[in-house]
Amino acid sequence: MTTLVANPSFQPFAKGHGAGNDFIVLPDPHSRLALGAEDVVRLCDRRTGLGADGVLRAVRCRASPEAAAIASDADWFMDYRNADGTLGQMCGNGIRVLARYLVDAGHCPPGTLALATRAGLRTAHVPYRSADFHGPVTVGMGTPRWPGPEGITVTAGARSWPALHVDMGNPHAVAFVGDLTDPGDLTSPPAVAPADAYPYGVTIEFVARRGLDDLAVRVHERGVGETRACGTGACAAVAAALRTGAVPGTFTVDMPGGRLGVAVLADGSMELTGPATIVAHGTVRL
Amino acid sequence: MTTLVANPSFQPFAKGHGAGNDFIVLPDPHSRLALGAEDVVRLCDRRTGLGADGVLRAVRCRASPEAAAIASDADWFMDYRNADGTLGQMCGNGIRVLARYLVDAGHCPPGTLALATRAGLRTAHVPYRSADFHGPVTVGMGTPRWPGPEGITVTAGARSWPALHVDMGNPHAVAFVGDLTDPGDLTSPPAVAPADAYPYGVTIEFVARRGLDDLAVRVHERGVGETRACGTGACAAVAAALRTGAVPGTFTVDMPGGRLGVAVLADGSMELTGPATIVAHGTVRL
Repeated sequence: MTTLVANPSFQPFAKGHGAGNDFIVLPDPHSRLALGAEDVVRLCDRRTGLGADGVLRAVRCRASPEAAAIASDADWFMDYRNADGTLGQMCGNGIRVLARYLVDAGHCPPGTLALATRAGLRTAHVPYRSADFHGPVTVGMGTPRWPGPEGITVTAGARSWPALHVDMGNPHAVAFVGDLTDPGDLTSPPAVAPADAYPYGVTIEFVARRGLDDLAVRVHERGVGETRACGTGACAAVAAALRTGAVPGTFTVDMPGGRLGVAVLADGSMELTGPATIVAHGTVRL
Repeated sequence: MTTLVANPSFQPFAKGHGAGNDFIVLPDPHSRLALGAEDVVRLCDRRTGLGADGVLRAVRCRASPEAAAIASDADWFMDYRNADGTLGQMCGNGIRVLARYLVDAGHCPPGTLALATRAGLRTAHVPYRSADFHGPVTVGMGTPRWPGPEGITVTAGARSWPALHVDMGNPHAVAFVGDLTDPGDLTSPPAVAPADAYPYGVTIEFVARRGLDDLAVRVHERGVGETRACGTGACAAVAAALRTGAVPGTFTVDMPGGRLGVAVLADGSMELTGPATIVAHGTVRL
């Protein structure tokens, strides 16, 4: 029997980031935390809370009926919430931070971890346990899907670009630009047309080609705003590059927060590699 | 004998805020931390660090020659650093957060605390210990000084206002505006003339009068940017109001992050009261 605790004052946490995309991890193995949207917003406030792009509640799958329904053979469930309190499906940087935390904090041995997300089962490879709570993590990101519609347009400032609709477990609109400064300031969200293309919102990538297997990307993340890096966004950018002439292989994706690697496997699925760093841990007010 | 430890991986911390002005407290009773400007910048980065407006290193005065020279009868020294790594003198919200931390974490009994700052000895009154790490703190802020020069002008956007130069242990330029929206966006620092008035920079207050003892204030803090609240800024605003006709008493100062109270005592000195909240504690990467 588990007891649902509604907001006890302080709860264990870790804060970490993957290439500058930052998260609060709430270890909740027995799924006892009733985490409301308002709790997430408060936690993610960068002045009066701890501050982050999102919250990763880490639940043992056997303690969560939701997780067991997603992937009965997974060890942990990543209950991902965006900074605005909405449910998130999948986050390539978040899952790396979570995997690094689970291994370095001793919850899992290093090696391959089976993790349930709302986008399905994902595998993370943590090559070693780091006493410094920092190191590379590789995550299987699944295969890009092309649900359509086509003919998407993204507008930022006074300029518009055609965009490709890529699904990486979450929806992306990918626009190729001549220069990363072209979209200008992304404080207000870019507009996407047709207006009904993404009823649940969309994460937008602006991609500059730097070489055959080298992309530079800015991301405006659904529910968050412009972020320093986005793992599914890196994969969506590579998927769009493949769709428009690039050759499968291993891509370098530079984002404002750092460099990620995306490998395209023979079956068309993608693996994302990048650093994950735990910055602090302790207890946080909920 | 104390040992100076240069950046061991993880150190104890608390993160808290006073009216939305947020700080990382580093308890360092024996003054063993060699905290460089680059460490402060890294800690205060809101994505790759823990994120804050500043760092408060808490040192027992007897362990710090610098603190003993300031106030030999103080218990603790607030070694305050701005988010950009520069040394800070005094911070009214910071000292409240520090006093709340010292009492609630058990370092000091509740009551009156004698705290050394680079602006001199300050007294904080913490009326009770809070198991919830949240509650009011009153701080003696000293007496405003008027070092001149006069004839200061502050410019934000396309508009300019005359400003008063007030010293609260740190320098302030206080401008009265018709409406708090008049200065517009404060992402870039307002300009101050004459250019040599503040060789070490200045914190700027835009003040709207709402009643005889009721002010609304926006603050652009030296070395930080626009903040949600500033304790010395609240006092500087009240000092400027007194200079321009207001009657001594107890003032309400509303800042974007919340309400502060400023009491003007018979000797002309000021007491600042407001909430202080510890949001998280644990260990942080240094």
